[in-house]
Amino acid sequence: MTLDPENWEEFARLAHRMVDDMVDHLRSLPDQPAWQPMPAGLSDRILDEPLPTRPQGEEEVYEQFLRDVLPYPNGNLHPRFYGWVQGNGTPLGMMADMLASGMNAHLAGFNQAPPSVELKVIDWLRELLGFPEGTSGLLLSGGSMASLTGLAVARNAKAGFDVREEGVQGDKPHLTVYGSSETHSWAKKAVELLGLGNRAFRRVPVKPDFTLDVEALKAAVREDREAGHRPIAVLGTAGTVNTGATDDLDALADLCAAENMWLHVDGAFGALAAISPRLRPLVKGLERADSVAFDLHKWMYLPFEVACLLVRDGEAHRSTFSQNASYISALDRGTIAGGLFLADLGVELTRGFKALKVWMSLKAYGIGRFSGLIEQNVDQAQYLEKLVGVEPSLELTAPAPMNIVCFRYLADGLSDEKLNDLNSELLFRVQESGAAVPSSTVIDGKFCLRVCFVNHRTRFEDVDDLVSVVLRIGGELSAESK
Amino acid sequence: MTLDPENWEEFARLAHRMVDDMVDHLRSLPDQPAWQPMPAGLSDRILDEPLPTRPQGEEEVYEQFLRDVLPYPNGNLHPRFYGWVQGNGTPLGMMADMLASGMNAHLAGFNQAPPSVELKVIDWLRELLGFPEGTSGLLLSGGSMASLTGLAVARNAKAGFDVREEGVQGDKPHLTVYGSSETHSWAKKAVELLGLGNRAFRRVPVKPDFTLDVEALKAAVREDREAGHRPIAVLGTAGTVNTGATDDLDALADLCAAENMWLHVDGAFGALAAISPRLRPLVKGLERADSVAFDLHKWMYLPFEVACLLVRDGEAHRSTFSQNASYISALDRGTIAGGLFLADLGVELTRGFKALKVWMSLKAYGIGRFSGLIEQNVDQAQYLEKLVGVEPSLELTAPAPMNIVCFRYLADGLSDEKLNDLNSELLFRVQESGAAVPSSTVIDGKFCLRVCFVNHRTRFEDVDDLVSVVLRIGGELSAESK
Ligand SMILES: Cc1ncc(COP(=O)(O)O)c(C=O)c1O
Ligand SMILES: Cc1ncc(COP(=O)(O)O)c(C=O)c1O
Repeated sequence: MTLDPENWEEFARLAHRMVDDMVDHLRSLPDQPAWQPMPAGLSDRILDEPLPTRPQGEEEVYEQFLRDVLPYPNGNLHPRFYGWVQGNGTPLGMMADMLASGMNAHLAGFNQAPPSVELKVIDWLRELLGFPEGTSGLLLSGGSMASLTGLAVARNAKAGFDVREEGVQGDKPHLTVYGSSETHSWAKKAVELLGLGNRAFRRVPVKPDFTLDVEALKAAVREDREAGHRPIAVLGTAGTVNTGATDDLDALADLCAAENMWLHVDGAFGALAAISPRLRPLVKGLERADSVAFDLHKWMYLPFEVACLLVRDGEAHRSTFSQNASYISALDRGTIAGGLFLADLGVELTRGFKALKVWMSLKAYGIGRFSGLIEQNVDQAQYLEKLVGVEPSLELTAPAPMNIVCFRYLADGLSDEKLNDLNSELLFRVQESGAAVPSSTVIDGKFCLRVCFVNHRTRFEDVDDLVSVVLRIGGELSAESK
Repeated sequence: MTLDPENWEEFARLAHRMVDDMVDHLRSLPDQPAWQPMPAGLSDRILDEPLPTRPQGEEEVYEQFLRDVLPYPNGNLHPRFYGWVQGNGTPLGMMADMLASGMNAHLAGFNQAPPSVELKVIDWLRELLGFPEGTSGLLLSGGSMASLTGLAVARNAKAGFDVREEGVQGDKPHLTVYGSSETHSWAKKAVELLGLGNRAFRRVPVKPDFTLDVEALKAAVREDREAGHRPIAVLGTAGTVNTGATDDLDALADLCAAENMWLHVDGAFGALAAISPRLRPLVKGLERADSVAFDLHKWMYLPFEVACLLVRDGEAHRSTFSQNASYISALDRGTIAGGLFLADLGVELTRGFKALKVWMSLKAYGIGRFSGLIEQNVDQAQYLEKLVGVEPSLELTAPAPMNIVCFRYLADGLSDEKLNDLNSELLFRVQESGAAVPSSTVIDGKFCLRVCFVNHRTRFEDVDDLVSVVLRIGGELSAESK
């Protein structure tokens, strides 16, 4: 008894059909709705199925996938998806994930080829982001895990006592962490998980351009020192989730150097602007961070899950997690020679072969393709900004320095409250129409559409279409509200 | 410019070739070496490649994968791999990962079909492990993350103060955690990451059967209370990594109930013994845990990465991580209606569609196939135990209650130190021969081979072969040492 097929030819036939179906699916995306609600009862049909005691067979299960699952994503693989900062996936990434899954390599370390692929990928990314040799790195599931891991290193490096052994329990100076009020919610989860507590996380106000107010930060650090606390880390952001703002990273780096603090930069999508010579100035100072976290499943468009953490001080990184398992390091030959050197850089022991899709994609397409696509997305954002600017019934609600544009529909004589209702209904109707998926946010009390360009499939015509559909539905709503 | 192929037909041809190659590869595993060292220079060839500025094309990159990567894993997909507790992957799992990657669904939540698949899978696993309805759960990357997440819930639920807000910093009773000295190394990483500190983790001695000594645990808890500490959690193990021992979970559950502590069970592989009616008694009491973590990429054989956490008190689970983002919960229609309910159960925001391979596999093969395979692995362990038992030059070094067998080669007149050298050389030669991959451990100072059956591809004949090769190489080494 195994889980290998009894009949390999039959299995291969099904596998080929799956490939054909997926290729067709991806190819025909432009003709599909950007999103469609699930038919009534679908979710219950999935949720009510009893424990499968009877084997249904691979084919029957696959048919159900085609019918009940594949047509109902949240839309993020679609050319006209601009909701949240999600990335699309790629055909080559999909097949690389198949290869990785079939090979099923265990990336804790071991004496095998796959870890070299991961190390190579990290080394390339290090070079692209302008970090020196000796920088350490790890691939992780996403920006949240990568930034959590970076902050853990910061905590242990800057606490001034042996955090691994002692923890942060007990009567010691409180460790405090700083970031702007626009910091992504990973940071709250992280300070909570690390035992620092939400109240150790100072949310520093932002300036009108949504970047951290450095003077306010300095004041907060000073105040904490006076209160006997120990400021350990600043969380800068390269590309905030709401508007794509990037903090003054040089100023943050200067402050951290002066104050013996750690600068962690959350560059979940924005950090990758650095791979384009044209866009690099947008994230100036990034290369001075002590650690930076960024997603390859966002602005490198690769399938979930893959993100990267870089840590300038490789020894600080290792000494946060390494297990020094003596029974392993003694084994200098055989399958585990070299030890579990990648598991020694993070929480995970078993780690999949996420690196393969990155390696194959960078090599197959070259860096230029990725920097070109990132530039294209920034150009699309500027294009949309221009379209909004000339349209009297649309209002830009925030600066659009990178790849995110926030705007709302205006209708004469409506209060801000009524405008919020109108724009929220507008959001729903645009999504429900299947024409496009923007997301939303609230800026200075204004509910607005938020359009994120992290999409290699979007064309400029799609941007025109988006504006048309917003104007059309906005006009209808405006008429209804009279 | 996109990352979609210019020529879809050509891409489809390559994708089909990849499927054929992988099917051939998996099919011919029995004829391949269980492990082979990398040729000299291979690792450097990968590591020395400069940043890919020139696009190499998908085909050329794939050729390099075939030549440099695929033939050099650590062996865990192979029928004669018994090293560590790693699982193999499956052909259907591989194709399900391809589908998941192509669909690229974002499993934070959202108004889409994939989250229902994850909820369904968790519900089935809950039922299989004997947990009540209302139990909460989440798929994670592995046992380490799943157990870390479980311990985070335990910490927040049992601390007696608001850990999210206050952290564990400051002059409060120290929170303490207990587990046996055989607890897997995830626990050290977890107490360190959570800010409790390694010294808050009491390692309770084990009995001769390698299960936690409950009386010693009681004494440790009493002592800590007397010292003013606050015992919050016991980490029980169902299937220790070294010998497959399972703690007396009923006794641990009784103690936790009496002491207002949380029982987290690390059942990384062992928990799945519960799905077999025949083996369920091995992990008796598991169903009384407050939380349990287990890997589907180990004893459910699925490709990396996929593990599951179950938490009996769903509200405690949610309230450890949920973000209550008010701007999201207000959106009751459209793409994000329903919110990010899965991201509210863990650290990760972006989460891939790990659930698909679990769902397809359970449905396609039915529960009986998995419980049958688990039983087969336990039978293989008992079979090996018997073979070792009757062989005068082999010595069992620990009881083998589940699926792990530890033994060593004996040679007349050698000291324990010399025997350790001999057995470590034996391990290397067996691995280097390509015949099989056992791992090793040290028990009571004795270096021994550790044979883990977490492999759906292993046949009983492979076990015979393993014993033959150990006896042959052991005999050679014994002759050499004379
Ligand atoms: C600025 C920023 N930081 C962090 C994250 C979290 O990344 P992930 O979803 O990969 O965990 C996001 C996700 O959108 C983000 O935009
Ligand atoms: C008993 C036990 N717990 C935890 C783990 C860690 O699981 P993972 O490697 O999936 O993180 C393992 C891995 O072998 C294990 O055997």
